[in-house]
Order: sequence, then structure tokens, then C-alpha cells
Amino acid sequence: AANVAANVSLGVGVDQELISSVPSHNPTFVARNFTDAEIAYCRSQSSPPSSFAARWVGKEAVFKSLGVKSQGAAAAMKDIEILNDASGVPTVHLHGDAKAKASEKGISKVLISLSHSDTVAIAFAQASS
Amino acid sequence: AANVAANVSLGVGVDQELISSVPSHNPTFVARNFTDAEIAYCRSQSSPPSSFAARWVGKEAVFKSLGVKSQGAAAAMKDIEILNDASGVPTVHLHGDAKAKASEKGISKVLISLSHSDTVAIAFAQASS
Amino acid sequence: AANVAANVSLGVGVDQELISSVPSHNPTFVARNFTDAEIAYCRSQSSPPSSFAARWVGKEAVFKSLGVKSQGAAAAMKDIEILNDASGVPTVHLHGDAKAKASEKGISKVLISLSHSDTVAIAFAQASS
Repeated sequence: AANVAANVSLGVGVDQELISSVPSHNPTFVARNFTDAEIAYCRSQSSPPSSFAARWVGKEAVFKSLGVKSQGAAAAMKDIEILNDASGVPTVHLHGDAKAKASEKGISKVLISLSHSDTVAIAFAQASS
Repeated sequence: AANVAANVSLGVGVDQELISSVPSHNPTFVARNFTDAEIAYCRSQSSPPSSFAARWVGKEAVFKSLGVKSQGAAAAMKDIEILNDASGVPTVHLHGDAKAKASEKGISKVLISLSHSDTVAIAFAQASS
Repeated sequence: AANVAANVSLGVGVDQELISSVPSHNPTFVARNFTDAEIAYCRSQSSPPSSFAARWVGKEAVFKSLGVKSQGAAAAMKDIEILNDASGVPTVHLHGDAKAKASEKGISKVLISLSHSDTVAIAFAQASS
């Protein structure tokens, strides 16, 4: 049974936004939605607005991949943390409600990829057991 | 053998379109490509053109994930139905030729995610056994 | 053990570019980054710049899905070859360093999908064992 259950793909998520539409210049928005480690990373990049936007759509894509009812502004986006690992690969860490909901659904891993052009940020997430 | 064959990822599909390029104002286009349930859903949304465009690229992405030769306008897009489940998660239902082709290829599940900005709709699909 | 290891999803990759930002009119860029078979295919299409751009973002998406540290312009993009199979489905062939890195990580298959509108090319890749 363990074999059958291992690594079953349970959800996918895609999201995109105009970089200009993500209010990363607003300290309240940033403090509410990003962890300290995410903020430090985004501020260290050559274009912080692009990095914040990419992580923002990443969080939305992860949220969709979990297959839970969207709660819009009420969703705790800080519970979905995206940090780069030692190889520079963006890696999803779930906390709080997001972690509990993933656990309920048998999701143990969420893969993510992020991309931004000059104007648009896009993300893809895949959730599996 | 059953374990090995379970949930093997067999194809992925991505598609995008300008919302303005999907002729959802054209009743012939809509009746030909969307099921009654899809039409009812899209018309109930705040921006029906965005919803029709998102489902349209969703159908194209599913079609690509099935790995069959594209048939352009001849493809029966109505055979690929995308309806939201009780949690609001878009869910793929295959009918007719699409179902037969998926079956031939051993595909038993297609996951989908949809996104639209003000101007662009994008979709991602993953087909697995 | 073989069952558990089979078809584990190990990485995903998404990438996008404005078609106009991919210098496919530059013979040095093309010769350095595309194989002869890719060049022949792209030149046979109705819009070679769109086809080159789609394959270019496809290579970037595959590179991301391999989860290796990005090497920018130094990456051997020619080692990631995307050719259509008999059904017209884009299929990834890894060579050289890309093949070696995939092998180190236990990646045996990379699925890819490509899409382009009039202005933007986008790609999604999924790497699995």
C-alpha cells in the first residue's frame, strides 16, 4: 500500500500577475504576506519588485495545488514560504493552516518553479503524496 | 506491476491566449466548444470572457497533455470538459474521442490549473496513469 | 525499493520570454544553442522566431526542472535538445553535462510542453525518476 501511495500527483497550480500589480512597495502588504527570510532574499536581488512578484504568484500557485477553497485576502500567504535551497532551487515550506490542509489531503511535497520577464511573473506548483 | 504503473506521469500541457483573442461573444464558437455546464459556469462569473478564455486554454493544455496529434479546429474540444468541484478546484472530465485516446495511452487522470490576468489566460495540465 | 523509486517527480520548471527578446536572427546565438535538428525544425515552421523562442524557453524550463545551479550564458543549452516525436509531441533529449547532471539526480525522464502567442513564448517541464 505504501508503494501505491508514494508520490501520487494530487494537484497542480499555475498563477501569473503583472509585476506592477503586486504592491511590494507597500510595507503592510510585504509584512503580512512574506516571511523575514523571503523579504531578506527578495531585497537582496537586482530587482526586488520582480522577486516579490515571483514569490507572490508562487504562493498563489502552491495554494491552488493544495486544492483548498480559495479564501482570497484572508488566506495566510505567509504560511506558504518559498526559499531557495543551496543550489538556488526555489523550495516550498508549509506552515500553520497550509501545512495542516496539505497534511489532511495526504500532500507531503510541493514542487515549485518561478519565472519573470520584465513585466510578468509566473509560477507553477505540483503537489504530491 | 500494478505499483509501477500507478500514477506514472505521461504528459504535460501548457497553453496561453490573449483573452481578447478567444471569441466568447460568438454563440457558434461557444456552443461548439463548451458544454452546457461550462457555459452556465462561465456566464455566472464576474467576467465571462475571462472565464471562457481560461477554460479554452485549459482544454488546449489538456489536449497537449494527452500527447495526441493536434487536429486544430477539428478537435472536439467539447469532449474535454472542465468543471469546478465542490472546493472550487477545476476538474477535468473526458468524453468521446478524448476519453478513448486517453484510455489508449493508459491515462486515467488529468490535473488542471487555470489562471487569468486582465489580458492573458494560461493553463497547465498533467496527465498520469 | 524499485517501486518506490519509480516515477517520483523530482523537479518542475517554468519559463517565459518575449519572442522579440530571443535573438533567433543572430546566427551565432542559434548555432551555439540549438542542434542541427532543432534548427531545421524551427526554420520549417510558419514563424521561425516563435519556434526558436518556444524551444529556447523550453530549454530554460528543462534546466530549471533538473534543479542544478544556473550557469547563465555558460550553460550548454545545446545539451538540452527538444524534438517533436512522430505525433508532434515535443520530447526532451539530454546530452553531455545536462545528461550527466540528470543522471546524478536520478532523473530519467523530462516531460515538456511549449506554447506561444503572438508575443510571448512559455514552457513547462517536469523531471521524474
